[in-house]
Amino acid sequence: MKDKITLLEETIIKLAEAKKYASLRDFLATLNPADLAESFAALSDQLLPLVFRLLPKALAAEVFVEMDPEQQATLIRGFSDVELKAVVEELYVDDAVDLVEEMPANVVSRILLQADPETRKMINEILQYPEDSAGSVMTTEFVELRADMTAARAIAHIRAVGLDKETINTCYITGKSHVLQGVISIRTLILADEKALCRDIMNPHVVSVTTREDQETVAQMFGKYNFGALPVVDGDNRLVGIVTMDDALDILEAETTEDMEKMAAISPSDRPYLSTSPFEIWKHRIPWLLLLMVSATFTGLVITRFEDALATCTVLVAYIPMLMDTGGNAGSQSSVTVIRGLSLQEIRFRDIFRVMGKEAVVSILCGATLAACNLVKLLVLDRVSFPVALVVCLTLLMTVVVSKLVGAVLPMAAKRVGFDPTVMASPLITTVVDILSLLIYFQAASIFLKL
Amino acid sequence: MKDKITLLEETIIKLAEAKKYASLRDFLATLNPADLAESFAALSDQLLPLVFRLLPKALAAEVFVEMDPEQQATLIRGFSDVELKAVVEELYVDDAVDLVEEMPANVVSRILLQADPETRKMINEILQYPEDSAGSVMTTEFVELRADMTAARAIAHIRAVGLDKETINTCYITGKSHVLQGVISIRTLILADEKALCRDIMNPHVVSVTTREDQETVAQMFGKYNFGALPVVDGDNRLVGIVTMDDALDILEAETTEDMEKMAAISPSDRPYLSTSPFEIWKHRIPWLLLLMVSATFTGLVITRFEDALATCTVLVAYIPMLMDTGGNAGSQSSVTVIRGLSLQEIRFRDIFRVMGKEAVVSILCGATLAACNLVKLLVLDRVSFPVALVVCLTLLMTVVVSKLVGAVLPMAAKRVGFDPTVMASPLITTVVDILSLLIYFQAASIFLKL
Repeated sequence: MKDKITLLEETIIKLAEAKKYASLRDFLATLNPADLAESFAALSDQLLPLVFRLLPKALAAEVFVEMDPEQQATLIRGFSDVELKAVVEELYVDDAVDLVEEMPANVVSRILLQADPETRKMINEILQYPEDSAGSVMTTEFVELRADMTAARAIAHIRAVGLDKETINTCYITGKSHVLQGVISIRTLILADEKALCRDIMNPHVVSVTTREDQETVAQMFGKYNFGALPVVDGDNRLVGIVTMDDALDILEAETTEDMEKMAAISPSDRPYLSTSPFEIWKHRIPWLLLLMVSATFTGLVITRFEDALATCTVLVAYIPMLMDTGGNAGSQSSVTVIRGLSLQEIRFRDIFRVMGKEAVVSILCGATLAACNLVKLLVLDRVSFPVALVVCLTLLMTVVVSKLVGAVLPMAAKRVGFDPTVMASPLITTVVDILSLLIYFQAASIFLKL
Repeated sequence: MKDKITLLEETIIKLAEAKKYASLRDFLATLNPADLAESFAALSDQLLPLVFRLLPKALAAEVFVEMDPEQQATLIRGFSDVELKAVVEELYVDDAVDLVEEMPANVVSRILLQADPETRKMINEILQYPEDSAGSVMTTEFVELRADMTAARAIAHIRAVGLDKETINTCYITGKSHVLQGVISIRTLILADEKALCRDIMNPHVVSVTTREDQETVAQMFGKYNFGALPVVDGDNRLVGIVTMDDALDILEAETTEDMEKMAAISPSDRPYLSTSPFEIWKHRIPWLLLLMVSATFTGLVITRFEDALATCTVLVAYIPMLMDTGGNAGSQSSVTVIRGLSLQEIRFRDIFRVMGKEAVVSILCGATLAACNLVKLLVLDRVSFPVALVVCLTLLMTVVVSKLVGAVLPMAAKRVGFDPTVMASPLITTVVDILSLLIYFQAASIFLKL
């Protein structure tokens, strides 16, 4: 079964190689920018500029924005100055900034040379904000209205300036020096009486962020408040830009990937996996593997310390992996639940005792179930002596309880002291739990088996 | 440091208890629905209805939508029929459907009784679509235009019907029997010449989904295409509803939580952690713990099989946890990277050989680094014999290579045969890798140590 993109790729390549350019042009114009960009990834460096030139001007810019940085660079190298200017002029400022950030220096200077002075100024301003801040992801192309405009006058103003704005769905009322006074949706303007003043129909209680706000917080605010756009202000409440919902969605996707990577002990990277070099991937994975390996040697130390006891009762060794794994799994379940709850703000630090209480009950339920199943298995299938079975099952119960408490508390504690709770996920919890489970195991063995 | 919500809660409770209702009403009107709903969670069942009644009518409905089902039920039980009708009338159909799905049966019948017949009909239609389908999350309140309308006529139509529509930012052009013909944004309509026909300015290449499409696919399409809304059609391409971007964002958030839960071996649940009972949590966690415990006993079997060898060379036991953990971590890194790539459609099945090649190189780099560090540690710190150090380091290298390949290939294979790749994450990979690493370990030991 071929997917949609594969079919598109084949059609484009077939038409291009048969030099049926008129048909290809018509075909391309029926497609979506995102699908076009995805299928262009299969084109050779020779075919790509040829096919790209067949796109209508506005669509070309939209497709360009969706493409991989590598392909963008290939295209720009082949562009004449006139072609480059045409594409750059059609870009929104925030997309132009993304492009400038990702291209090599010699390409950047060509891009800035082709941008008109006004755009160049806006690009340079946005480039000055710290990475991953609201300022760095906002666009400066928004609609500003004044409080004393009527709805009809406001709509006329939007008609005059709207073409260059990234969105007209949400407009902002500003006063002297662009100080933010209110927000008004195009819906309110259109449904209002034509003579109504913006002052009276706007929402004066605007939620805004400052330019230095973290982009993740910005994206989460969209999830919580269902905004279409969020205004970005400077220290004096002057409106300097907006973040739109589609950008928020992209940020949320990137931040989710980052969270998942951190939870799997990978230093996050910005690039898609397939276009990252193995050496680059190694750099993102090896620090955590090394750190966790060093931690795991402590587990080895615990075993070494009880080597003599193990030698007298070798049957105990066989249950070490099961105890360690179950503890690790039980702890991961709790830590991931709590980390996600913290990130969605469903759980806050003040809930720590409720969380601990809940995990205590859950862990006793889980631990008892597992211990009971295991007891039957040990006695009936493995036919070990009752004291050994007792030691294994008691350890299992206690390991699950300890693991779940540790798994729930560590991320909350990390958040409290300002660390990133996501690094307290499975791999780190597993290592901590390994040591604890072995200590419990040998303690139980020394009590009940008199080792 | 108190957070914003805690401050809001305290102010609301203080004003309510001092019976300063006029001031409280003014204060509430300045706040956002989402913040209000969150701070209402701290109110007692006595205070809640009292404070809720102080909200302006439109805001009240918006706050109501954002509240926990428990609190919604408390409020509805206290509502008179007139009050309930007022809230239900202000709800959009998709929110009303959510409410009906979450309330107990006796509350549902009261809600449906208070809804007007038209709304009741729409609610019942949406309720018939399968859970998590596009049909079940869409709203039926959208703006429909005709191709022969001028831009001015279309805007006049929107002014007439827009108040009851969930969005007017994206409108749809339909023909006979509501067959979908095109899409047009309010921006295009406003910026167009007043006499331009919708036919000429609409986008006829509409991306739509059918009512049965999975909601996760729908949400991912928003991420890819940057739509403001997505039309939902029936089998005959008749427009029956739309999904808006704010709903897509909610779906994406829920699906991400579900993915993270599955990756941590938890059966996904719909409810926030703090309002789920311990028994319910136990039910979602115990099946996986049991299954993984059973798998882990196979690891124990491997150890039992080599018990005699271990007894002659007990030093080998001390390195078992380090080898198992490192293998598990290395495998998780690869599996999570691939799972996320699959979910973002950055990796497709046809890339399997590229992925394997990349993981082979990365795993040799990682394995060699870890083995080298370990060799120094084993010889200098632990002072083990060279053959033992060799066995441990060779096993480490091979375990990392095998783990990363297994971690990368299993999720892709799962996806290929129609399984959910997310369950192939850390816990399952860890169990598989445990067994493989031990088999390698004992094989290496038997070769180099002649056990």
